[in-house]
Amino acid sequence: MLYIKLDRSRKISLTQQLYTGIIEKILNGALSAGEKLPSSRNLSRSLGVSRNVVLEAYDQLTAEGFIESAHGSGTYVADGTRMNGYRIGQVPQKKPLTGLLYEPDDTVIDFRTGVPDLSLFPVKKWGGLYRSVCESLDPITLDYYQALGCYELRYALARSLNKTRGVVCDADHILITTGAAQAFALTARVLTPKEHVIVEDPINNDILKIIKASGADVHPVIVDDQGIRADLLPDLNTVKYIFTTPSHHFPTGGILSAQRRIALIQYAESHGGYVVEDDYDSEYRFTGAPIHSLQSLNPDRVIYVGTFSKKLFPALRIGYMVLPPSLMEAFLNAKHLEDLHSPVLEQLTLARFIQDGLLDRYIAKSRRVYQEKRRCLVDALTRYFGGRVIVKGSATGIHLVAQFPGVLFDKEKFDRLLAGGVRLYPIDDHTITKGLFDDTLMIGYGNINNEQIEEGIRRIHAVIT
Amino acid sequence: MLYIKLDRSRKISLTQQLYTGIIEKILNGALSAGEKLPSSRNLSRSLGVSRNVVLEAYDQLTAEGFIESAHGSGTYVADGTRMNGYRIGQVPQKKPLTGLLYEPDDTVIDFRTGVPDLSLFPVKKWGGLYRSVCESLDPITLDYYQALGCYELRYALARSLNKTRGVVCDADHILITTGAAQAFALTARVLTPKEHVIVEDPINNDILKIIKASGADVHPVIVDDQGIRADLLPDLNTVKYIFTTPSHHFPTGGILSAQRRIALIQYAESHGGYVVEDDYDSEYRFTGAPIHSLQSLNPDRVIYVGTFSKKLFPALRIGYMVLPPSLMEAFLNAKHLEDLHSPVLEQLTLARFIQDGLLDRYIAKSRRVYQEKRRCLVDALTRYFGGRVIVKGSATGIHLVAQFPGVLFDKEKFDRLLAGGVRLYPIDDHTITKGLFDDTLMIGYGNINNEQIEEGIRRIHAVIT
Repeated sequence: MLYIKLDRSRKISLTQQLYTGIIEKILNGALSAGEKLPSSRNLSRSLGVSRNVVLEAYDQLTAEGFIESAHGSGTYVADGTRMNGYRIGQVPQKKPLTGLLYEPDDTVIDFRTGVPDLSLFPVKKWGGLYRSVCESLDPITLDYYQALGCYELRYALARSLNKTRGVVCDADHILITTGAAQAFALTARVLTPKEHVIVEDPINNDILKIIKASGADVHPVIVDDQGIRADLLPDLNTVKYIFTTPSHHFPTGGILSAQRRIALIQYAESHGGYVVEDDYDSEYRFTGAPIHSLQSLNPDRVIYVGTFSKKLFPALRIGYMVLPPSLMEAFLNAKHLEDLHSPVLEQLTLARFIQDGLLDRYIAKSRRVYQEKRRCLVDALTRYFGGRVIVKGSATGIHLVAQFPGVLFDKEKFDRLLAGGVRLYPIDDHTITKGLFDDTLMIGYGNINNEQIEEGIRRIHAVIT
Repeated sequence: MLYIKLDRSRKISLTQQLYTGIIEKILNGALSAGEKLPSSRNLSRSLGVSRNVVLEAYDQLTAEGFIESAHGSGTYVADGTRMNGYRIGQVPQKKPLTGLLYEPDDTVIDFRTGVPDLSLFPVKKWGGLYRSVCESLDPITLDYYQALGCYELRYALARSLNKTRGVVCDADHILITTGAAQAFALTARVLTPKEHVIVEDPINNDILKIIKASGADVHPVIVDDQGIRADLLPDLNTVKYIFTTPSHHFPTGGILSAQRRIALIQYAESHGGYVVEDDYDSEYRFTGAPIHSLQSLNPDRVIYVGTFSKKLFPALRIGYMVLPPSLMEAFLNAKHLEDLHSPVLEQLTLARFIQDGLLDRYIAKSRRVYQEKRRCLVDALTRYFGGRVIVKGSATGIHLVAQFPGVLFDKEKFDRLLAGGVRLYPIDDHTITKGLFDDTLMIGYGNINNEQIEEGIRRIHAVIT
């Protein structure tokens, strides 16, 4: 309904105020050409004035050509009535921005990490599934939920995580979050004000910021090809948690060895703390035996965090955490105080997507696609650089790291790469100890195709040789 | 894909381990009757064992009747192979719980506040709109977004808020949140660690908890029929913000007078703080002139918060805040560190819902429905209680408060009401100063129909007379 400010205490008549108010909105574009005005009956009711006031204002506006009546179908704003630069009560006009974190740029090949192949996702099928959920919905489903999130998704997830990752849990130990980011934010708020926290170095910089924002005392421990160096865990009396990416270290790509897994769990036990297991892309493993989840070693000491941002798509914002029973209450309280619970209709859609076997099928398909992209990337690196490049990390995920001994990747080099048409991101964005990876590139291949991979490596080669 | 823990260092053969692992999952129900097993080729690849290992295990399981092959279509778990009470590696079985905050109970009429008419929402049309958004989607839309949320929704909201509520903003001053709850949580984190905050008393108890969780020093100010008593604002040097529900005080129903609005703004200005305007249900105003938003008085001092939980439905979890430009950066940073941004496809659907005029139409329809429910409620109260009830608050929203002079609503009375088939909630759940509303009931009428309203008042009457 149209809102016009009317003030009965002013000397100006209500008709005149209404007339001026509508003109203002037409001039500044709040009401645009062709837009339908409310009927005089509805507007008079909603503004609390007599119908005559509205009719008189409409007559005057019609006479002056601001609005037009079409017999039997109502009153519309006339064309050509917008005045550019008119500022009183102005509203913004549409800008061509999307709100995306990274605006698309066709001239550059972007080796960004952490984004899956967006054109692969069957979004039309997903839309159809969402509609079908809506078609058969009990209205009670639209009400408020407990902080956990909706049961259908937690149940489907519990079964799927047990079957595919060996995670030990039932539906009531799963908390649905707005992406994995929120799982880390909740963990930081619940567990860490002014406590000791151990993190891998390097570590995703957003996650590090989240942990630091809680006021935690952060202790970095460096990683090697087998993940975090468990032999370097600091000598402290108590540690609240250890943050780790055991299935595929971000960004260096190592898989945490069994011995170190056991060492982390034992360290957490003896220091009265927990291990936070960030299992962000373990589905995309191309060779070898499956990797056990750390959680399966001790469900009472591990907070297991997963996300659909890499499995499906980031804009979905559905993540989940599997919590030790002793922590449930504190986490549910924190989630309730943050946003009550996450949106439900997409949770129900995702539950159906899992139950109908579409998730397993989509992951199997994605795995083949990423395996091929990785093969193509390694192949191009080898062809262009031969023995001057060392591909590091395990054959898993949607990015790899490549070392170029003797090459220095500093700010100037990244600028030159960008000028050469290829965008790369310094590992030092994600390191606490700086300078250990000056000769190494993170290369994400999730959302670019094989031709772009080939051309991108050619462009890198053109710049650094 | 099926996950079975295999350990090459054990003396037991891989075939035997695989066989035992699958049996375990069948016995405990992780694999249920009729479920399809992976092909031997896929399973051997994913477990990193030779195909013969899988074929031998499958042969053995088939021979023992745990699984069955259907020619040309694969291998399935046989019927009757689940063992109740088998606990090793057990996963939970489906429970009939929904995860709803309030489980439905047909035997009780629930006068809960804050929930709209869930059966009124055109959920099938919504589902169709979502699908149509998915049908024509550019894959880039599925990527990560800036903390603000997606531009289409912010743009549609800026126009709508300007037109209907006189809110002064453009799309870049709107932050999309996971419900209004998150807007309050972000405000508490950004503005209040250890600062003075003024709140209305009564105040929604969840919001009070959120504000307190930030460590704020909370000063309650009582309300009367015209909202918060601005003449009682405390004498402090600095105040970070004042929380208020000016369009319709929750729960007592008063509308903040113009004089008090100006006083609040001036107090915020002179104390270096802000006013948080919670505009949760102002759409449902049944009589009189529209109410100006407080934000329109001074967009630099007011944080305006709205939600679609009452306009559409709570499970959607879409809220928004209009922020003073000086606060944008701090709030965007806080939102990014919490969950990066809110889910996008429903934001796009909602933008279309607004642009296509469906929101205005739905609100107009809802307003008629709630007006009729309110009429029915007041009518029933009058018929049953005559002069012994005083209906308080303005004719707006989806709840009212009713005073019953001389009646005491204590815990025992609420228990008796529940035993009498009617659920009501004490106002003292939402008060800081206790005991001022002992003779007063909050009555929510959003999600019950006219027959339930009539019968509910009859049941109240049967208990308290």
